[in-house]
Amino acid sequence: MNGAQSLIRTLVGCGVDTCFSNPGTSEMQFVAALDDVPEMRAVLCLFEGVATGAADGYGRMARRPAATLLHLGPGLGNGIANLHNARRAATPVVNLVGDHATTHLAYDPPLASDIESLARPVSRWFRSSSSPAELPADTADAVAGAVGPPGGVATLVVPADLTWEEAGDPLSRRPHPVMRAVPDDAVAAATKALRSGKRAAVLVGGEALRRRGLTAASRVVEHSGAKLLCETFPARLERGAGLPAVERLGYLAEFIVAQLEGVRHLVLAGAPAPVSFFAYPGRPGYLVPPGCEVHTLATPGDDVAGALEWLADALGAPADAARGQQAGRPDRPTGALDGQTVAAAIGALLPDDAIVSDEGNTAGIFAPGATAGTPPHDWLCLPGGAIGQGLPVATGAAVACPGRRVLCLEADGSAMYTLQALWTQAREGLDVTTVVLANGSYAILELELGRVGAGVPGPRARRMLDLGDPDLSFTALATGMGVPASRATTADEFADQLERAFATPGPTVVEAVLG
Amino acid sequence: MNGAQSLIRTLVGCGVDTCFSNPGTSEMQFVAALDDVPEMRAVLCLFEGVATGAADGYGRMARRPAATLLHLGPGLGNGIANLHNARRAATPVVNLVGDHATTHLAYDPPLASDIESLARPVSRWFRSSSSPAELPADTADAVAGAVGPPGGVATLVVPADLTWEEAGDPLSRRPHPVMRAVPDDAVAAATKALRSGKRAAVLVGGEALRRRGLTAASRVVEHSGAKLLCETFPARLERGAGLPAVERLGYLAEFIVAQLEGVRHLVLAGAPAPVSFFAYPGRPGYLVPPGCEVHTLATPGDDVAGALEWLADALGAPADAARGQQAGRPDRPTGALDGQTVAAAIGALLPDDAIVSDEGNTAGIFAPGATAGTPPHDWLCLPGGAIGQGLPVATGAAVACPGRRVLCLEADGSAMYTLQALWTQAREGLDVTTVVLANGSYAILELELGRVGAGVPGPRARRMLDLGDPDLSFTALATGMGVPASRATTADEFADQLERAFATPGPTVVEAVLG
Repeated sequence: MNGAQSLIRTLVGCGVDTCFSNPGTSEMQFVAALDDVPEMRAVLCLFEGVATGAADGYGRMARRPAATLLHLGPGLGNGIANLHNARRAATPVVNLVGDHATTHLAYDPPLASDIESLARPVSRWFRSSSSPAELPADTADAVAGAVGPPGGVATLVVPADLTWEEAGDPLSRRPHPVMRAVPDDAVAAATKALRSGKRAAVLVGGEALRRRGLTAASRVVEHSGAKLLCETFPARLERGAGLPAVERLGYLAEFIVAQLEGVRHLVLAGAPAPVSFFAYPGRPGYLVPPGCEVHTLATPGDDVAGALEWLADALGAPADAARGQQAGRPDRPTGALDGQTVAAAIGALLPDDAIVSDEGNTAGIFAPGATAGTPPHDWLCLPGGAIGQGLPVATGAAVACPGRRVLCLEADGSAMYTLQALWTQAREGLDVTTVVLANGSYAILELELGRVGAGVPGPRARRMLDLGDPDLSFTALATGMGVPASRATTADEFADQLERAFATPGPTVVEAVLG
Repeated sequence: MNGAQSLIRTLVGCGVDTCFSNPGTSEMQFVAALDDVPEMRAVLCLFEGVATGAADGYGRMARRPAATLLHLGPGLGNGIANLHNARRAATPVVNLVGDHATTHLAYDPPLASDIESLARPVSRWFRSSSSPAELPADTADAVAGAVGPPGGVATLVVPADLTWEEAGDPLSRRPHPVMRAVPDDAVAAATKALRSGKRAAVLVGGEALRRRGLTAASRVVEHSGAKLLCETFPARLERGAGLPAVERLGYLAEFIVAQLEGVRHLVLAGAPAPVSFFAYPGRPGYLVPPGCEVHTLATPGDDVAGALEWLADALGAPADAARGQQAGRPDRPTGALDGQTVAAAIGALLPDDAIVSDEGNTAGIFAPGATAGTPPHDWLCLPGGAIGQGLPVATGAAVACPGRRVLCLEADGSAMYTLQALWTQAREGLDVTTVVLANGSYAILELELGRVGAGVPGPRARRMLDLGDPDLSFTALATGMGVPASRATTADEFADQLERAFATPGPTVVEAVLG
């Protein structure tokens, strides 16, 4: 058995059976070995950023890692932005990077580069395998390194000669990550703070944003009177009718300041203390109010949901104290198409058990509100802030969850970073409905340009934020990659097209032209 | 004057007046300052890999650097593959990366990452500016760091607060890079080798591939009887009727072995000793024949053309000994459309003084031969091997050389990495004719899969190399980005469409569907 075969069998033996691939010459043995190991599903991506983002989406939904397959340093480079997002999302990803044969690196061939230096900033675990005998153990270690807790990117560099040489036997070693239990005094301190009678808030994140953690958090706040908040861009938030609702921290610092106003005790459960996404001249970056005490109940690697249950019990909150979101949908909209009517149509039509990959940015801000009372669903945001995540994450989520409808809310500017994901959706027949929110600009930057104190933008500055001249046509772009597409300019058209798209197997793009 | 204004004025003062931009919030002051410094031309790119590749194409043609403008670590990540290519091409690039405000990094906000670790592998010069007072000097140093010799990527990280604070006065400091003169004994050794009577070859690269260096190299080989070769993928090769022709080393190791067979003296002038692009089981990676002596006349930082002239004089070669390529064009093709008829049409129609950005890969291999005798032109290859270069390099070359027609020869698989370049071509009205060579596969990998000894590929392996299911439509994709496009399935159609495209101002895409 050669190294490539042993590598793939080990991945499968360790519970990794999906690989988002963009291979090159140094990965050809891996590709050839796919026919020997039918348990491994390989999904071709036409760009590495699609592969890494899809692995992120897969890992968030499957709760176990997918592998990537990238070609040398430049291929890794193309995947870095979405690996950054996976790192911030604490998503388990086994990031495989092929390298030149060990004997060949000394010649500094054209594609050689310092892969480790490129990989370290996005990797919680890194190793370059050095012998075919150790390749199976390196692979199993990479899986364990990815899985956590809480999860992250494990990069394994695989020199080409290791894949063609005779290798060690494959390993079968399912990782069983154990979340850390929180210490007694963390619970005691939070209990005391929430009983102090002063204004308090519980800020939840990570694992706490699934049903169990949210239920416990809801018990805590319903009983104590504290405010429940969650991080600005959760990696995965379970929400909808019957699930406890949680208010997300705003994107803009001044919103967060308002949300935390008067709070004297802030209990952190799986989320860091709030900071501004960007700094602005003369404004604070650290957003915990002056005089507010911060109590860390649980960090992302801890058993956050267990800690919240413990806290709820310690407070004496009844087991049924959690309050679920009331069911309800907005009316199907009519009239002009804008952020609000787009959101209303989504709220009116979102299928049961949907997964929403949200990179709607400014144009998408009304969507969470309009869908709050729809049937339970998962909402995947952009914890790392690197745009170009939405379409790949939707792709990976759909691979992880066949039978569930994925809605990708995608801003036009962001869509252009990793649009190649549409082709993979078409090839794999994935049930992804992409709504491109087409406002023809980097609208977030128009907002930010004003906020950084740069004055009134002139025509040359505005041209850097404008996506017109020429206008993009997302129906043409989608069609070019084999995905059926339509274009809506009114709310009625949009609702009709969205309804049809949700009912159509496979991927569809609806371009929402915003007035 | 704030830091952003001083930064841009310093760039202009140091001879950098073009910036390929994909800004984010941390770069908003730079964007705002564009209206204060009209001498700076900012070109918006919808993806960072387009910006860095365009800066590479610009630098190869303009012989001075363009700047990029990238957003934090993830934005740099998206630009790394084409910065890798620029590094291998020795192209001067001032790579500007915005960062969080210095005060904000301590909070580890979502977009923070280790920018230096990401940048080092592609940068010959790196600095993170630490004060607005020093920003002008840092900028001038970056330009000097990029310019060489021989040229490379200088990465300057600019924290956001430096751009909005009051800064030092702009500097005006044109760099004057001085190429190293080669030592006497290098010329003497090469002279002796070429007079030895044994079979010899002169391998030229870098600066030697422009008219002056080629003319000197031609004098050397015409007089000495040595063979003239150049590197496999030159960054920029001047060629065509009247210019000395030079045989390029092959891509496949066995071709290079054949080209160097029997050579006992190899003189290197601006090129490294030949190595295999990839390693293969049981085959050598270092391709200098056993027993062949290698003589380094000049390295890429040296005055390579001057060294070749010195060598020609030392050998006693007459001043007019250089032999120019005979003029001639192939007949306009007819019949089926394949790599050969595509090449013949290009040879029949290539405009005077064209620039060819060649990422045609396997489908493009006949194009150099078919254009050898056309009017003088520049040919830009892929020295770094990271695909996704062709369209951005064509874009940057067109910005650098208004009035010259750019032909981009683009393989379909490679086109999908940085296709967003088409939008920039449309916005800027660039005279770029892109020929997409559509064979529906990663054909190079089909070749390589056989060569790495992986046996006969099975259906799952083949599916990883196949770009069908669904087919891509490059006419739809181009149209979606505002570029007119047509599709050719016969040689006659292709020649007609190419002729029309060459005559049309602005960008056009011709999709050549290869049988």
